[in-house]
This record gives sequence, C-alpha cells and structure tokens, in this order.
Amino acid sequence: MKLHDLGEFGLIHRFAPRFTKYLPLGIEGIGDDCAIIPSSPSKAMLVTTDLLIENIHFLKSKISPHDLGYKSLAVNTSDIAAMGGTPQHAFLSLGLTPNTPISWIDSFFDGIQELATSEGIYLLGGDTTRSSNDLIINITLIGDIETAKIKRRSQAVVGEVIFCTGYLGDSAAGLRVLLDNLPAEESTKYLIEAHHRPRPHTKEGQWLSEQASVHAMIDVSDGIDSDLLRIMEQSDCGAHVELSDLPLSNHFKQVCDTYGWNAWDLATAGGEDYCLLATAASEDFPQLTANFLQTFGRPLFPIGHITTASNKLQYTLEKRPINLSKKGFDHFR
Amino acid sequence: MKLHDLGEFGLIHRFAPRFTKYLPLGIEGIGDDCAIIPSSPSKAMLVTTDLLIENIHFLKSKISPHDLGYKSLAVNTSDIAAMGGTPQHAFLSLGLTPNTPISWIDSFFDGIQELATSEGIYLLGGDTTRSSNDLIINITLIGDIETAKIKRRSQAVVGEVIFCTGYLGDSAAGLRVLLDNLPAEESTKYLIEAHHRPRPHTKEGQWLSEQASVHAMIDVSDGIDSDLLRIMEQSDCGAHVELSDLPLSNHFKQVCDTYGWNAWDLATAGGEDYCLLATAASEDFPQLTANFLQTFGRPLFPIGHITTASNKLQYTLEKRPINLSKKGFDHFR
Repeated sequence: MKLHDLGEFGLIHRFAPRFTKYLPLGIEGIGDDCAIIPSSPSKAMLVTTDLLIENIHFLKSKISPHDLGYKSLAVNTSDIAAMGGTPQHAFLSLGLTPNTPISWIDSFFDGIQELATSEGIYLLGGDTTRSSNDLIINITLIGDIETAKIKRRSQAVVGEVIFCTGYLGDSAAGLRVLLDNLPAEESTKYLIEAHHRPRPHTKEGQWLSEQASVHAMIDVSDGIDSDLLRIMEQSDCGAHVELSDLPLSNHFKQVCDTYGWNAWDLATAGGEDYCLLATAASEDFPQLTANFLQTFGRPLFPIGHITTASNKLQYTLEKRPINLSKKGFDHFR
Repeated sequence: MKLHDLGEFGLIHRFAPRFTKYLPLGIEGIGDDCAIIPSSPSKAMLVTTDLLIENIHFLKSKISPHDLGYKSLAVNTSDIAAMGGTPQHAFLSLGLTPNTPISWIDSFFDGIQELATSEGIYLLGGDTTRSSNDLIINITLIGDIETAKIKRRSQAVVGEVIFCTGYLGDSAAGLRVLLDNLPAEESTKYLIEAHHRPRPHTKEGQWLSEQASVHAMIDVSDGIDSDLLRIMEQSDCGAHVELSDLPLSNHFKQVCDTYGWNAWDLATAGGEDYCLLATAASEDFPQLTANFLQTFGRPLFPIGHITTASNKLQYTLEKRPINLSKKGFDHFR
C-alpha cells in the first residue's frame, strides 16, 4: 500500500494512536489545531507546527519573499488563534538552495518580522540548511492560554449554530487568479492579497475563547468542507450548511461571475481562508454576534447547524439539498 | 550576493541581530544549541529545531526508515543534552512523496518511537504534507532544566581544559564507508551504526550540568573544528587542540589505516558525533573526570585548552603546530 491510497487523514489516524495513548495527565497531543501542555495550575502552552514546500504550498515565481515570510508565520498564528490563545515564540527552519540571492532572504525575514511585530511574536531560533531542489519552510509556534478558556474541535453539540469570522473563498480565488494569470484589477488584486497576506484572527479567537456560549472552534485552513469534518470527527456529530448563507466578498462574487467559476466549490473546498469556524448554542447566538459586532465592527456569519452524526455533512442551496463536486484538500490523494 | 558567498554562519549573523535585540528579560534566542524561555522563577524551557532533507542530510537508499526515524529525533535530543536539559515534547513535520510505501512510514515511526520511549519524550503533534521531490523531516523538541544548571556556549574561560564525552570521527567514517560501498566487516558495521544511530548524551549532559566546574558546553554536530568556533565566538576566546589526544575508537583507527584516510580530518571536521564538547577549570578536571568515570564507566577525554582570542583555533600533533586541510561543515559553501 502506498501513501496516496491512505491519504493525509488516513495516515494521521494510522500513527497517532501510538503517540496519544499514554500521555501524562493534562497533556493533549495530536488531534487539534495545537497540542496543549499545562504550564501552571491555570495556564497551558499551545504548540503548533507547519511545513511549507515550494511548488506544493507556494510558487516562488508568484509570491514575493516578503509576503511568503509573512504568510509562513500567519498560518501558524492562525492555529494558535483557533484555540483562543496568544502567540509568543517562533522557531524557523529554512532549507535554501545555495544560489538564493541574499536580497531575497532579507525580504523574506522582513515579512516574518512584519507579522511577528504586529502579533507580539519573538523568533527565538531555528535551523538553516541547504536544499537541493525546493525552498522549504517550517515554523513551530508556541503560545499560551488560560486552561479554562481553551476551545477544542471536540466540543460541538447537536443543534448549535455553525459560524465563521470572515469571508470564505477569497484566498482560493486569489490562487486561481495567479495560476490563470488574470489581469490586475481592483477585485483580482484584492483576492491575491487575501491569498498572500492572510490575517490571522488572533484577537477574534481570544475574544471567542472568553465566551462560554462558544463551544467547538477550528481555523479554516483546508476549506470548511474539510475543517467541518474535523469538528464532526472529534465531536461525533454531523453538520448542515446552507450555501446561500456563506459570507462571500463582493470582489469574490464579481470575479466568480466574470470568469464563470463555481463559487460554492471555492468557498467550501478552496481553503487557506484562515478565519475561524466555531459553534455556539442557537439561543445564545444573537447576543454573541451583537457583542462581536460591537467589538470588531462586523458580525459573525452563521452558515449552518450541527446535526446528529448519521446526517454527515449536508449542503443545501436555498433549503434544497445539493451535492458539491469538490472535496476539502487532502495532501496525498 | 548569493547565499553561497555568505555561508551558513554568515547568514545567521546577518539576520539574528534583528530578532535578538529586544527580547523580554530572561529569554535567550538565536545563538546557542537551544533557545531558553523561563517557565517559573527557577526553571526554564529549552527549545531546538532541526531540518533534515533527503540527499543533503541522508540518502534514502543508505539508511533504513527505522534508523532514519531514530536519528531524526536523536539529533534534536543532542541539542537539549548540550545545555544539560531533559527532553520532553516533540513535534514532527514530514514532507512525503505520495508513492511512499506505508510500510516505510510505519518503520520510520517505529524508529522515532524507539528513541522517544528510551528518552521519555512524547510526540505531541506535527504536520504531514506532500513533497514533490525530497523526503523532508523537521523536528522541534522542547525540554526543561533548572535555570541555574544551564550550560551555555558563552562560558569558556582562558586556560580551561577542553574535553569531550565520546569518540570523534566514527560517524564521519561511517558515512564514508557507506558512500564508498565498503565491504561489511565488524569495524565498518560499527562505524555505520555510529552514523545511523547516534546516542544522544542526555544523561552525560544532565550530569555535567550539575557540576559547577563545567563552564561552556555544546554538542558535536558539525565537527569540533566548527563547534569549537561557536564556543570561541560566544566566549571571545581561542582554542588549542592536541590531535594525539583526540579520542578515537579502535575500529575507526583500523579502517582509517586500511583505506589510507586522514583520521585527523574526519575526527575534527567530519561531524555528527553527537557527543558533548565542554570546558572546565584545569585544577578541577582530574576530580571531574574521576567522578564521571565512576558514574558512566568511562573517562572524559581532554583534547586541549582554551586560549586567548588572538590565538584563534590552533592544532598541534605531538606538540608541533599542524594545519588541517578540512574545515567544519558549512551548508552553503
């Protein structure tokens, strides 16, 4: 059997049990956006790591070194945000070909430093090494949180509202704009920016972590189609999503219209939105979104409900059942 | 200017200052084997990360997946040992080609688990992703230590004895055995084992960290020629090494003799020995090595002395100055 037969999540299911079986009390390993390691009776350390490989996660010809540095740290920061934590300490491993211009590397570090400064993150170490083919970037990010505030993927309850904290599909559409070499206009530039400079929803995550009415939480990295599956697996539930409720930017809708793209596929399975996806009790949601609006100047976007596990993940479009053609991203299939 | 003009350590010197300038009190970033993050008034967290890339750090055709898993975790564990700490929590990023056999991945995890179990390390998370060309492995390892016991590269003092905790050159000779496809004999098999299954000197590091007479410490990863330079830079000193004092295994000497290899080059610049290199006051050394012998059943190996900075790194062979042809490993030159 080869890896492409098993798939990314099959692989994780295969090897995770042997490393999660005998953990010391309080430690939570593989299975959520971050590992949880208690650091005091009331606080915990959150740890996440992400590997980015040239031609798989990015095309060096399509992204500036500054944006690549920024984005590399942003995707990790989003994992800390997904548990409600505060990012603190980063460690960078960098595999570079010997003919890389120093000016490229300087700009890459400028991008890392830009986000690190705005998020209060310190880059404390790493490893630099030669790579023969691809540019390789790995960042490990450590954060902290009060233990009582941690939001997990496993806390969704049947009947709860599913909501997200930002637009869906912009990043995936931005990637398509780049790959199709579409002309630069206000709308296409906006989408490329969403793809290259995702803003981690750290403040939103911290705010949501303080709300008792919020239960499950995850960040949208693989697309809600895949990320909802993670919540469903961990919470043993199903989900129903009403496509007409998905929050879509005007630029996204306009570009999808112009080029005849399937907006639902991009918004559900495109991924890399790096907003947060969470659940809350139905009766609490109106007050929750009103308070969020007051704090952040925009509402939370309800997109569906948690259902029983046997319902799996169901989509409707204006209440009529619909099948989507694309599935969330799996690295090995 | 390209990266190969600047070199690995030139690159680190170029970007490190902007990330080490404004660190919060007590935090130590880039510059030692691990970053140091205070975790309580008397304890600190140690963090290290290492990136291993196929055809740069290993040849998939030459190392079993089990040994590769073992070694990947061992090189990080050695960094924790180099500060005197206890390894605790590991995070693994793995870039794999989709046609990787599942049996290969299973064995790789067996190797990680073997060392993790013997060192008391928990694998708590990671990232698995597709790679188009090379197998990519990044491990971040977190350990802990009592703050007062931390040994740094920066603490060497002029006149101190330089010593190491194990043989030098075995691993580099093992690599050469593999690359030259030499016949399997007791001695060549021993050297390959030293290259593929380095034993991190964790217990030795913890013991040395408790000795007030021990000052600077580092692990031998790039070869003492390069690793001594790190101590010299950080401690603002020079070093004198007497080659006839280098601890060499009988197997190493025999294979060097048989194939006419320059033993001094392999022992000083070969690298990947993963024993510890440290300094102690001359007057304390006899008692220190006697106590070490009693605990570990073998002595510490004195190989030279710390000198003033203007002396740089000097080698003698039976007290006569000698120039070595090879320099410690630099990834980009």
